[in-house]
Amino acid sequence: MAKEVKIIGLESIPEIKTGDDIAKLIVEATEREGVGIRSGDIVVVASKIIAKAEGRVIYLDRVVPSKRAIELSNIVGKDPRLVEIILRESRRVIKATKGHLIVETKHGIVCANAGVDKSNVAGREDIVLTLPIDPDRSAREIRYRLYELTGCDVAVVVSDTQGRPLREGQIDVAIGVSGINIFRDYRGTKDLKGYTLKIKRIAIVDEIASAAELVMGNGSEGVPVAIIRGLLFSSKEESAKLLNMPKERWLFK
Amino acid sequence: MAKEVKIIGLESIPEIKTGDDIAKLIVEATEREGVGIRSGDIVVVASKIIAKAEGRVIYLDRVVPSKRAIELSNIVGKDPRLVEIILRESRRVIKATKGHLIVETKHGIVCANAGVDKSNVAGREDIVLTLPIDPDRSAREIRYRLYELTGCDVAVVVSDTQGRPLREGQIDVAIGVSGINIFRDYRGTKDLKGYTLKIKRIAIVDEIASAAELVMGNGSEGVPVAIIRGLLFSSKEESAKLLNMPKERWLFK
Repeated sequence: MAKEVKIIGLESIPEIKTGDDIAKLIVEATEREGVGIRSGDIVVVASKIIAKAEGRVIYLDRVVPSKRAIELSNIVGKDPRLVEIILRESRRVIKATKGHLIVETKHGIVCANAGVDKSNVAGREDIVLTLPIDPDRSAREIRYRLYELTGCDVAVVVSDTQGRPLREGQIDVAIGVSGINIFRDYRGTKDLKGYTLKIKRIAIVDEIASAAELVMGNGSEGVPVAIIRGLLFSSKEESAKLLNMPKERWLFK
Repeated sequence: MAKEVKIIGLESIPEIKTGDDIAKLIVEATEREGVGIRSGDIVVVASKIIAKAEGRVIYLDRVVPSKRAIELSNIVGKDPRLVEIILRESRRVIKATKGHLIVETKHGIVCANAGVDKSNVAGREDIVLTLPIDPDRSAREIRYRLYELTGCDVAVVVSDTQGRPLREGQIDVAIGVSGINIFRDYRGTKDLKGYTLKIKRIAIVDEIASAAELVMGNGSEGVPVAIIRGLLFSSKEESAKLLNMPKERWLFK
């Protein structure tokens, strides 16, 4: 009678190298761990391992910072070469103050440092990882490849850990999706009392990313993939870019 | 070998009335649905049913709007009596434009309409529900009462559905907690590569609220309670107010 959804964290995904076939490694891990893949599963993949498979690793000693990067680095107090990489990943700078560089990435995501990250790359300050080039495309490719390998129709969500403008701490959100509706939209439907809902539209793929993070834990590298099993959803091909609020609607415009 | 966490939605919680013993109704539902309560469970309760048990229902025809509420209602285009209730629940107005009234509630939460809601109350436009008076206290009381009734030591999270300043759609977050650490704090720890993490601090109670929402669905009244089972956490007594970022740190100050 109770509704039950499982969050299953895969613990035996090996370290990812450039060119790796992530879908194949997922299938192997699910077999090894006795979990398997089923149609209707939602496979959540940490953006970090996709970026690694894409070879999005950058050695800062090969980066020559632009004049603008040097100026900005003085304001934010970060390595000018790191700022250069962040600028290359960005459409524009939203906020630059001591310790903080908030940008809008080329994907349209507003986040700190364009998601450029030092953790779980090489243990060195001078090697960083950027976000995947096109997380929707990555999600789609993993989904198709999983179908090819298993015959199962799953959804794929690419997750990333992000801060929030008004709340402390970070949570995981969806930056790429395939085979799942982004929102559970209640607008225009009636609640249990017959009241017509006007604004309720749940960003379920973000909630799915957050649920997956609960089992991913430290650095999202030990457990970089989680499967959400038992959740009903509509299978639709949409872009995670629909989650990026257009600037004119921002709360603090 | 795979880590597994369950999200269990309780489907037989009856409609809540003022004065109801929510913990008792939860225990009865878990017995009826063959789920039970176990030590280490995290019980997520939709704020709405707590507000109902507290009698936080307001009939707008008994509300006399202040001058300020009338002025604001002209700007935002909402019922002046509703605006009056929102102001009574708030410390200050953050943004007021056509269709939008963003405030900081007395709990310190920045959200639309101070969380005052018409859905799942009475199916009428003129009866609304406010947020619980003190969601941390409510969480604590439910937790103690669950211990009294079952002998199990659980954590309790009070969840609420909220919009985000930069992302489309709403997700559930934690507005009250008891018996669980708010953050999984990695700052100062080393990642798998030996790199010392500087900023990673996951707001796990928000992620828990979002995970629970996945089974709660429409109006969070059909399934107003979910149990997260199998997730390890530190049992600590903290306030959900720690999630409210102080104004001087807001992204768009």
